[in-house]
Amino acid sequence: MSINQFGRLLTLTTWGESHGPAIGGVLDGCPPGINLDEAWMQRFLDQRRPGTSKNVTPRQEPDRIRILSGVYEGRTTGTSIGMVIDNVDARSKDYPVDAPYRPGHADYVYDRKYGFRDPRGGGRASARETAVRVAGGAIARLIIPDVSIEARVTEIGGESDAERWEALLDDTRRAGDSVGAIVECVADGVPVGWGAPVYGKLDADLAAACMGINAVKGVEIGAGFETARMKGSTSQDAMREGPDGPTFDGNMAGGIVGGISTGQPVIVRVAFKPTSSIRLPVPSINPSGGNAEAITRGRHDPCVGIRGAPVVEAMVALVLADHKLLHRAQCGDVR
Amino acid sequence: MSINQFGRLLTLTTWGESHGPAIGGVLDGCPPGINLDEAWMQRFLDQRRPGTSKNVTPRQEPDRIRILSGVYEGRTTGTSIGMVIDNVDARSKDYPVDAPYRPGHADYVYDRKYGFRDPRGGGRASARETAVRVAGGAIARLIIPDVSIEARVTEIGGESDAERWEALLDDTRRAGDSVGAIVECVADGVPVGWGAPVYGKLDADLAAACMGINAVKGVEIGAGFETARMKGSTSQDAMREGPDGPTFDGNMAGGIVGGISTGQPVIVRVAFKPTSSIRLPVPSINPSGGNAEAITRGRHDPCVGIRGAPVVEAMVALVLADHKLLHRAQCGDVR
Amino acid sequence: MSINQFGRLLTLTTWGESHGPAIGGVLDGCPPGINLDEAWMQRFLDQRRPGTSKNVTPRQEPDRIRILSGVYEGRTTGTSIGMVIDNVDARSKDYPVDAPYRPGHADYVYDRKYGFRDPRGGGRASARETAVRVAGGAIARLIIPDVSIEARVTEIGGESDAERWEALLDDTRRAGDSVGAIVECVADGVPVGWGAPVYGKLDADLAAACMGINAVKGVEIGAGFETARMKGSTSQDAMREGPDGPTFDGNMAGGIVGGISTGQPVIVRVAFKPTSSIRLPVPSINPSGGNAEAITRGRHDPCVGIRGAPVVEAMVALVLADHKLLHRAQCGDVR
Amino acid sequence: MSINQFGRLLTLTTWGESHGPAIGGVLDGCPPGINLDEAWMQRFLDQRRPGTSKNVTPRQEPDRIRILSGVYEGRTTGTSIGMVIDNVDARSKDYPVDAPYRPGHADYVYDRKYGFRDPRGGGRASARETAVRVAGGAIARLIIPDVSIEARVTEIGGESDAERWEALLDDTRRAGDSVGAIVECVADGVPVGWGAPVYGKLDADLAAACMGINAVKGVEIGAGFETARMKGSTSQDAMREGPDGPTFDGNMAGGIVGGISTGQPVIVRVAFKPTSSIRLPVPSINPSGGNAEAITRGRHDPCVGIRGAPVVEAMVALVLADHKLLHRAQCGDVR
Repeated sequence: MSINQFGRLLTLTTWGESHGPAIGGVLDGCPPGINLDEAWMQRFLDQRRPGTSKNVTPRQEPDRIRILSGVYEGRTTGTSIGMVIDNVDARSKDYPVDAPYRPGHADYVYDRKYGFRDPRGGGRASARETAVRVAGGAIARLIIPDVSIEARVTEIGGESDAERWEALLDDTRRAGDSVGAIVECVADGVPVGWGAPVYGKLDADLAAACMGINAVKGVEIGAGFETARMKGSTSQDAMREGPDGPTFDGNMAGGIVGGISTGQPVIVRVAFKPTSSIRLPVPSINPSGGNAEAITRGRHDPCVGIRGAPVVEAMVALVLADHKLLHRAQCGDVR
Repeated sequence: MSINQFGRLLTLTTWGESHGPAIGGVLDGCPPGINLDEAWMQRFLDQRRPGTSKNVTPRQEPDRIRILSGVYEGRTTGTSIGMVIDNVDARSKDYPVDAPYRPGHADYVYDRKYGFRDPRGGGRASARETAVRVAGGAIARLIIPDVSIEARVTEIGGESDAERWEALLDDTRRAGDSVGAIVECVADGVPVGWGAPVYGKLDADLAAACMGINAVKGVEIGAGFETARMKGSTSQDAMREGPDGPTFDGNMAGGIVGGISTGQPVIVRVAFKPTSSIRLPVPSINPSGGNAEAITRGRHDPCVGIRGAPVVEAMVALVLADHKLLHRAQCGDVR
Repeated sequence: MSINQFGRLLTLTTWGESHGPAIGGVLDGCPPGINLDEAWMQRFLDQRRPGTSKNVTPRQEPDRIRILSGVYEGRTTGTSIGMVIDNVDARSKDYPVDAPYRPGHADYVYDRKYGFRDPRGGGRASARETAVRVAGGAIARLIIPDVSIEARVTEIGGESDAERWEALLDDTRRAGDSVGAIVECVADGVPVGWGAPVYGKLDADLAAACMGINAVKGVEIGAGFETARMKGSTSQDAMREGPDGPTFDGNMAGGIVGGISTGQPVIVRVAFKPTSSIRLPVPSINPSGGNAEAITRGRHDPCVGIRGAPVVEAMVALVLADHKLLHRAQCGDVR
Repeated sequence: MSINQFGRLLTLTTWGESHGPAIGGVLDGCPPGINLDEAWMQRFLDQRRPGTSKNVTPRQEPDRIRILSGVYEGRTTGTSIGMVIDNVDARSKDYPVDAPYRPGHADYVYDRKYGFRDPRGGGRASARETAVRVAGGAIARLIIPDVSIEARVTEIGGESDAERWEALLDDTRRAGDSVGAIVECVADGVPVGWGAPVYGKLDADLAAACMGINAVKGVEIGAGFETARMKGSTSQDAMREGPDGPTFDGNMAGGIVGGISTGQPVIVRVAFKPTSSIRLPVPSINPSGGNAEAITRGRHDPCVGIRGAPVVEAMVALVLADHKLLHRAQCGDVR
């Protein structure tokens, strides 16, 4: 598995910097014969797209996806699907290479790891890359048509009452600050049996998928961290005979036990830290040495988690579709 | 990457069931010339070993590791390291195949995925497999000798005051119940620059590594879920010039930004659910159909998280050693 | 490793059909700080380019490579390198979907595997994809600057006297037929120690790399098939002390023993079958059933092996660069 | 894919040195519910086993395979299959560490790559490792029960008349020399559609599988190198309607076109060089420097290719079973 690649059998390999000419990726391993057009993918990209409200960055990017291969006369052919999204509104002068390192951003570590970096808009570390994930996720959904995947923001800045979010975000933006968020994703319709023991666990793959999203600092499945504070007698989902097979009395497990899906909804919760780019000054250092203050003047979301929801959906879709194929490989179509 | 395998360049492939003749694994990609003996590995296995106190399962397993290849005259040769641990105290009659599915365990999903299963002691899904991880992690530590990795239980059943744990565990055991725990692992001495962008992120690999441990339901890096409730002005680690390079005013990031290590301690926090095997009855179903009560009579830990700490250390060690090699591959020894 | 991907650490993932809008790929894992521009890559692409003589297909493709990511101010950044080559001269009407299956081509097997296919110009199975390999190989060369890699045609249609090739090709073209060829590639400057035991062998990776090129039916290393007819006393390369280290009395081994480079030139020989597209009629069947005659009217090389030489070079470069990185990962820069 | 591992979905990871306590491996990804016992595997191991005639090494190894996991009550469970073969007849004093490098062997390159090596019996580079391949291949056959795989020696020392082999081998043995061989493997019953485009080609995987066998220097598919000397009008397999689907007029392609199986027998031909260990002296150097003569006194096959046939079968079985699973993953059970 290469470092800019995600997945086992259904793999997404991406490329592109925030302010390069384009971003893109390759989805490989997709089954043949699936109806696919750019309009379907665009629908999901539009959900992630910047510039659509005052709470997300005003950078104007149409994020128009183009499929360049792997689809013939509206159906996937089984070959690799090349995708490109042109970068249109890239204002590179906002990002001088000699600006102080922005704390919370990857500037410093890229410079130290690679010796230098593309400083424009965060380069490869920009959340812009997630547009390609959303494109890949849109295709993944078609591989698992019986599964519905929905992610929503459940908390912003510690506030779970959605009616107070607007004011909170307004205040935050005015203060030049940012806030974190929690996104919950529910995948309904996952059959029992997807996943694999030990290192190919469905929850392990979901954890990698979501922790790898920009700004994510935590991932939990089902009752997650709460289970650590529970007793075994309450953390288990009792089973009973139902008319259509076993039913569960709850879903503390988040639909996964032993790394394998139970047939209940798969529930993943993801913690996004506050946007690292803020207008308030933060003590930092210059690339060439010496203390400095980092002040971000570029355009940014006050709460990156809001735009994170469609990305979480995409990553969950990619993992589930991948595990459907893995299960079919080992156990066949039956079951 | 096969499903019973972990890692990118430094890979651990494991095999073995709880009540089979033995468990074992292969560590591949280890650098040559490292001093290694079984005594070093045994030291870590003994930390994980069952039967050492009343708070862990009384199953008596010496867990004696044998290295069968890849080491010559006390040094690693660079070839694959075969490891075997014999199973000694396996009481398979505790686990009849027709017993009700144990909620929280993988019994049901294995049966549905594979059509049948090895029911003895949880088979492949048993935490016994983690002994091999600990063995692999012991070798991984030698690949990163400048990094110290320590995990400790920070909460048991929601209680963070360690002085009350003894009584809490006694009560829990007597009640036939179990409790969850939180384990925190700190890796000190990781240099800046390990990790990779986008999908090869150090934190994404740590998340998969830890979420894949038995009974784990959540993973967070640094301030983790707390960052979702913070503002950007407090969640960032300001930087300053120090006598030996940059210093940070805090470590909210847990030593990782943009998927790459910052040079600060890497901090991972892991949520273990309560042991699923409890003596209290839980409503369940029989494999052949019909409601039933699952009552576990086998020997089990009242708090599986306690023995989870050395496993978390091992997985963190494997990930860090792997990323040291990945970094060296791409960027060379310098830096 | 996904199915449209090659390599272990340095990976090339490609996409694109012969008559789609473009072909392209992603080179991942490239070290940072390497001077790279499109002109360097174009030089190799021009060697493979069709339309340059009467002995290769007259399809006019400029094959202009565009680097869309991973390079900043003329140097590789260490992030994934996105590459695109637009398809310009695609005459899709030459390839009706209901034409008889062309024997030797992948038409029939694609239809049977995937249920249908993109029939235009051979779709994904077209040798056009190899342009992206050449682009990737051009970058790979820069990772191993001390290694020179040169492939040349040594036989055409069984004729090893190069002076007779022109006439042979003229006759073949006029007859509407095609001929096979043998390409030999020599990589000079490979140090001792690249490769790995058992399954990560340098020669095994070279074999996969070359056998995966369109029209290739055989691969041999060093004296190859001839060694099967030799005695051990003649097939071995005796060693002697030299002023700069050991020297070998010959190179029957083709620079690889036990899967690891010896420090001698690495020699790979590749057999290309005759171009499958010929103007002579070949008995075949229709996709919808019934016997038919396949007659190719599209534009094709009378000897595909001629254009195969730069592709062999590229694949050898990719394998060697990959193994340099693998060696550095495990054994460090020293040695 | 780690370096001591083979396969994509069905993976074999091996460990063990010639004169260590044991050799073994892990077969991962095997479908569940397959009847498997050690006797079945032993049958194939016995074919490869040394000490059975005067034409193979007299080392007496029972090669008794033990399955340690992944099988319950005679059926595969779908979890990883751990296998061990104890080394019994290891005479390490035959291999002093300060002996001259044996030309054709991996002694020199291991020393240079890793800094030192296990010198006993060739260590990891010994053909003894292939016993584990044969064990893995025996299981792979059960995944593709409708495919019969048979390899046979077709040439020894350039002699294709089998009646002359006995005398040739006697002469060779007496002279202290060795001879090469060609092994041809035919897999009958492979359906149309296994394989994948571009880099996941069935023939590319077969080439890697066979080139990675000890002493192999060449691999060809179908008419192989001969096709390079043919015309397109004769190298193609014409197709015709048959009562049970398409038939082919020949099998120059060796059952594979465009990297995908055609439904015809898959034919692989493999060139084994002469055994490198010969009693005749070969000029060489000492590990500590200085010219010397390498004379092998250990026990060896005069023609390693003879015992190579079951290994080729095993590798072909592993590749085909892997591709069956890959095909099922992407395209489903149907077709």
